[in-house]
Amino acid sequence: MTVPGLLIVISGPSGTGKGTICKSLFQRRPDIFFSISATTRPPRAGEIEGVNYYFKDKKSFEEMLDRNEFLEWAMVYDNYYGTPKTPVIEAMASGKDVVLEIDVQGALKVREKAPEGIYLFVVPPSLRQLRARIERRGTDSMEVINKRMGKALVELANLYAYNYVIVNDIVEEAVDRVESILKAEKCTVQRYRFVVDGEPDEPLVVPK
Amino acid sequence: MTVPGLLIVISGPSGTGKGTICKSLFQRRPDIFFSISATTRPPRAGEIEGVNYYFKDKKSFEEMLDRNEFLEWAMVYDNYYGTPKTPVIEAMASGKDVVLEIDVQGALKVREKAPEGIYLFVVPPSLRQLRARIERRGTDSMEVINKRMGKALVELANLYAYNYVIVNDIVEEAVDRVESILKAEKCTVQRYRFVVDGEPDEPLVVPK
Repeated sequence: MTVPGLLIVISGPSGTGKGTICKSLFQRRPDIFFSISATTRPPRAGEIEGVNYYFKDKKSFEEMLDRNEFLEWAMVYDNYYGTPKTPVIEAMASGKDVVLEIDVQGALKVREKAPEGIYLFVVPPSLRQLRARIERRGTDSMEVINKRMGKALVELANLYAYNYVIVNDIVEEAVDRVESILKAEKCTVQRYRFVVDGEPDEPLVVPK
Repeated sequence: MTVPGLLIVISGPSGTGKGTICKSLFQRRPDIFFSISATTRPPRAGEIEGVNYYFKDKKSFEEMLDRNEFLEWAMVYDNYYGTPKTPVIEAMASGKDVVLEIDVQGALKVREKAPEGIYLFVVPPSLRQLRARIERRGTDSMEVINKRMGKALVELANLYAYNYVIVNDIVEEAVDRVESILKAEKCTVQRYRFVVDGEPDEPLVVPK
């Protein structure tokens, strides 16, 4: 019997560096399945179908919506974004741990459907660094930057809806902590059951 | 402000190898405070006061009992054994993580007083290995061995009173898992608070 993998949601306000953490985790752990979002936004230069996103036209995205095929979805600046449910469920069923990298609103929606998941909240080491990262993203006006800072601060207040906090001070150390959390979660007693009527050489307790 | 250390209770039926795990953890992690039990049993050859045990006469042990100085205690074959409370509390207050290696009955008593602790349950990889370890301990009769096996099995049923299970298959891997649990527990959101009115360079969230 295959032991289902864990669902790990890595989230946090934009500008906290959750993408960087996920990229490093992806390089370290080819055994993990990283979920890929679907979007109706056109591909940017260098973006590859099935690697960065599943690119869809509006009609087929809406058909997927009608068939309830998303774990969560949102419309941002007239484009749809969503997390297809089937690949996540299939990967978990095959025993793979699955990572979703997702914004705060999306994570809270996933949590409603999958409360058994492990929810990680990435926070920046300081306000100054959060602002620096948001500024680094583009040539936005001070007004836009202040708006994004405000949004990030409101999102930060959702910390306690998560299980773990990852302070993104040094990326590789943050990824060490994520890996420790995966290892520790696999040891929680709720994930184990006793083997009844096992042979003397068989395990006494096994993951369920 | 010093962030208090964690209380980690490593427990399990006798013969599961919790002592071996603790010894290896002790070697890896000199930063952890390992609690030392007090006992009225006379020292065996090679045992050192303050390393293996605090050796007490009956009168001073009972005076400590009267002063409520134990986190837990028991009488085994006419000898007292107990975990002195003060060193544990002082070490935690100084920011050190504290490990208690303790039998199942003792761990359940500690849990009543310190539910915020992290309770690890060490289980043998199989019944056959449990029996082999119990047999290896001495030249006991089959009757005594069977009795110990029975006791171990009853104790195993307490698994779900703990937070984590450590299957003791390969010691160093089991210790890796214990270390991951310590690291992960330090990331749980309950252990963090927001910094209110901090400077822009100060952390946004800090351990509490």
